[in-house]
Amino acid sequence: MPATLKIALVGIGKIARDQHIPALAASPDWQLAAAVSRQGHVAGVETFSDTAAMLAACPDVSVVSLCLPPVPRYEVAAACLAAGRHVMLEKPPGATLAEVHALQAMAAARGLTLFATWHSRMAMGVAGAKAWLAGKTVTRAHITWREDVRHWHPGQDWVFEPGGMGVFDPGINALSILTEILPGPVHLTSATLEFPTNRATPIAAQLQFSGHVSADFDWRQTGKQTWDIAVETPDGALRLEQGGNKLHINGAEIAGEDSIMGEYPALYARMAALVRTGQSDVDLAPMVHVADAMTLGRRVTVADFDF
Amino acid sequence: MPATLKIALVGIGKIARDQHIPALAASPDWQLAAAVSRQGHVAGVETFSDTAAMLAACPDVSVVSLCLPPVPRYEVAAACLAAGRHVMLEKPPGATLAEVHALQAMAAARGLTLFATWHSRMAMGVAGAKAWLAGKTVTRAHITWREDVRHWHPGQDWVFEPGGMGVFDPGINALSILTEILPGPVHLTSATLEFPTNRATPIAAQLQFSGHVSADFDWRQTGKQTWDIAVETPDGALRLEQGGNKLHINGAEIAGEDSIMGEYPALYARMAALVRTGQSDVDLAPMVHVADAMTLGRRVTVADFDF
Repeated sequence: MPATLKIALVGIGKIARDQHIPALAASPDWQLAAAVSRQGHVAGVETFSDTAAMLAACPDVSVVSLCLPPVPRYEVAAACLAAGRHVMLEKPPGATLAEVHALQAMAAARGLTLFATWHSRMAMGVAGAKAWLAGKTVTRAHITWREDVRHWHPGQDWVFEPGGMGVFDPGINALSILTEILPGPVHLTSATLEFPTNRATPIAAQLQFSGHVSADFDWRQTGKQTWDIAVETPDGALRLEQGGNKLHINGAEIAGEDSIMGEYPALYARMAALVRTGQSDVDLAPMVHVADAMTLGRRVTVADFDF
Repeated sequence: MPATLKIALVGIGKIARDQHIPALAASPDWQLAAAVSRQGHVAGVETFSDTAAMLAACPDVSVVSLCLPPVPRYEVAAACLAAGRHVMLEKPPGATLAEVHALQAMAAARGLTLFATWHSRMAMGVAGAKAWLAGKTVTRAHITWREDVRHWHPGQDWVFEPGGMGVFDPGINALSILTEILPGPVHLTSATLEFPTNRATPIAAQLQFSGHVSADFDWRQTGKQTWDIAVETPDGALRLEQGGNKLHINGAEIAGEDSIMGEYPALYARMAALVRTGQSDVDLAPMVHVADAMTLGRRVTVADFDF
């Protein structure tokens, strides 16, 4: 296998420009060899308007990374696997659980790598939090994930369309950390979902899980933005802030930085290792919790929301 | 292992009386040794008002079968597994996917059998339909599942509460047959969910899956009740009627009866075989499709519904 893997990016939007392209440019593992975008363009990289054309023109691109919204993702991922390429998926890995199960089966049948990424699991404090909690008893945990959708998704109406997930788009990042660090599984026991009267997905949600674990997701937070997880044990308390990037244990700062810029380089390092060792990594636990909340949650309507 | 297995039934409601108790009484594999019910009672069987008391009083009951509604089911199932008993679950196996995953892990860790039953898969025509479709290409399939909730769930408000699943309570039976007979997986691509303005779960749903597979679920059907699945292939067409109990292939009746009375005896025969061979059987595919529909579906409101 060559020292540098040729990769194509599909979906050149905000997350691709902010995270994927810089992460690839800084890595010795990767060469960004092609891009697929209807409108976007990456300087110095051949850009195609559809995936089929890219796959036909670039037989030496062995890996495709998908950063487009969840609803169109399955068709593109399936086409890439059918063409013998390894696939890396932005979070959430699809619009439905069943389609990701189908991609898993396709990848396994072809001996290809499928990596369903959860970038927040690569935040600076997560590994330390997981190590400290291993073997401990969690008596209580609470997630506070409150941000301003107008700032982070300006004008992106798709987040409020079916499959766009609404406030679970950021909230699933919190759930990806929770399911990584807790020493045992939890399951949803009740939820309230706040739907704006003019929108198809929730703008806020309050979740109750087994074992005194809870979450407060809100997309209407102006001013200070909060992405915190607090965990209590008989041996002390842990606090993750800044989306998992700052870790405090019993009040002392253990690890961390204010930036999330380490997450995508870590994802791409992991993808390179998965491809080189012929493995896949598809953990749907965060997505299962969202599906459970959408199934079991009680819907209430709140004020109209417009960008 | 004894020739007859002692079993306890938890939840003595309509389904227990109509199906579970007659099936157990007719089987050489089983002895109904205890029941748990807050109000119900089974003639000739010791009845307890809670599961913990039954487990303590009946150490020789090796298997517990749960026929109570999905929301309280997890706590009872977990208590039975913790007490070293094999567990059989009515459909759907829980209120959330995550709780069933947790039960699976508990059962596996203890070497116990967990059987998530789908009674409609035992309908008379299903095995024949699956055998005929094996290796064929499905070009189109459609489910029509229209019944009268007032007849089948008279006054059962829980079906319209969060976790009660609404029209997916019968619809999941259709999905359990679909996922059993199709030669490959499908995934939901869009759905419309009709919520009565005064209820928390849908009373009707229209589902579109990949591969030209679709479903029409409606709980407002008075008069003739319909539980049909039609499947088209280049080699001819198949039609399941009566909830999977009648099978027609290219217009000829292959198998079937008007009754569902064979389904529960088949479930209990399978449970006996699973316990005796130390296996579990937990296929969540039907429940995944419901969770996907609740996640991806577009909600519309329809007229109030009252029993």
